[in-house]
Amino acid sequence: MRGLFITFEGGEGAGKTTVLKIVKEKLEEEGYEVVSTREPGGSVIAEKVREVILDPEHTEMDARTEALLYAAARRQHLVETVIPQLELGNIVLCDRFIDSSLVYQGVGRQIGVDEVLQLNLFATEGMMPHMTLYFDVTPEVGLARINKHSGREFNRLDQESMAFHEQVRKAYLALQKKEPKRIHTIDASEEIEEVVQKTLQEIEHFLEKEA
Amino acid sequence: MRGLFITFEGGEGAGKTTVLKIVKEKLEEEGYEVVSTREPGGSVIAEKVREVILDPEHTEMDARTEALLYAAARRQHLVETVIPQLELGNIVLCDRFIDSSLVYQGVGRQIGVDEVLQLNLFATEGMMPHMTLYFDVTPEVGLARINKHSGREFNRLDQESMAFHEQVRKAYLALQKKEPKRIHTIDASEEIEEVVQKTLQEIEHFLEKEA
Repeated sequence: MRGLFITFEGGEGAGKTTVLKIVKEKLEEEGYEVVSTREPGGSVIAEKVREVILDPEHTEMDARTEALLYAAARRQHLVETVIPQLELGNIVLCDRFIDSSLVYQGVGRQIGVDEVLQLNLFATEGMMPHMTLYFDVTPEVGLARINKHSGREFNRLDQESMAFHEQVRKAYLALQKKEPKRIHTIDASEEIEEVVQKTLQEIEHFLEKEA
Repeated sequence: MRGLFITFEGGEGAGKTTVLKIVKEKLEEEGYEVVSTREPGGSVIAEKVREVILDPEHTEMDARTEALLYAAARRQHLVETVIPQLELGNIVLCDRFIDSSLVYQGVGRQIGVDEVLQLNLFATEGMMPHMTLYFDVTPEVGLARINKHSGREFNRLDQESMAFHEQVRKAYLALQKKEPKRIHTIDASEEIEEVVQKTLQEIEHFLEKEA
């Protein structure tokens, strides 16, 4: 496989989706073939699985069932979308991937990071992203951004969800500590132009090393 | 958990579904509370997952995606149907369970028995049936029964599928060898009354030991 598989990770309000879009354009201007994607990402089967996960009537959904369904959608998206693009030698930028499951199912839903990792390695047949960018913001900054976006004020529920956001952040930072070669932390609390610049630097540095 | 979880396994034409039905009635006559089930078995979510697996338009379905979806349906069926019945102290007779995945996905689809086992242990949180009955017939007998049922003659395709049926049988026998305490082989080549009799003996013997 000749391409490069880069995943974008982070909590809510980290701005990773916006950054991904701009970074894609910049890399294309530099002459790279770049594909941006996110699960379930164009795979009909993965899309159907996603519908089962998100159906609001499925209140009986068990945490492990959910983790298995995310892994199924991931597998199908990987096989149908990501791998074919990598085989063409393209750069694939993917908004959330395996680390999101480790954080949200493994820690958030308390299944355990190692168990969710083993499950996902079954799904990816051991394949991991070549590089993962973790966009780090404090819960305060993240929530403030979400609120600004939706035009609402900081409220009591935000206060409650603060603990959850803090947990998510801790989990991401722990993953980064465990896999410092793959996961690169980017301070996402700064202005978007600054974050884009740092992201491009990280990717270009990686491309130079690989070349 | 006070109940007893018994799974019925075997290749096509082994007659396990028919036997299960009769055995349930006999055990009820003896005064036991018995529930018969099969995946996806009444769980709305598992049913939806099953639809995704079986949709004939999903020709792009990857073998690992399929294994993950079966495991998801299994998890939900276990949590919503099997475990509540076991907690009531009932006998649960389940038509196919984890061993079917080991045989059909692990061996048939060539993912590997150990990998599919690990995946399924994630789904069941390590829970295995208390007892598994494997209904053993040669491919010749199995296929003859299926043909008799559908009123068609032995044909070229049967000849081709013979190798697959043989592979399935070998895989079941290998599982039995690995787990002789859990998996009990029943010679299912005889007349149905005989097979029912042997099945009841195995179950009653097990119940006596447990009591």
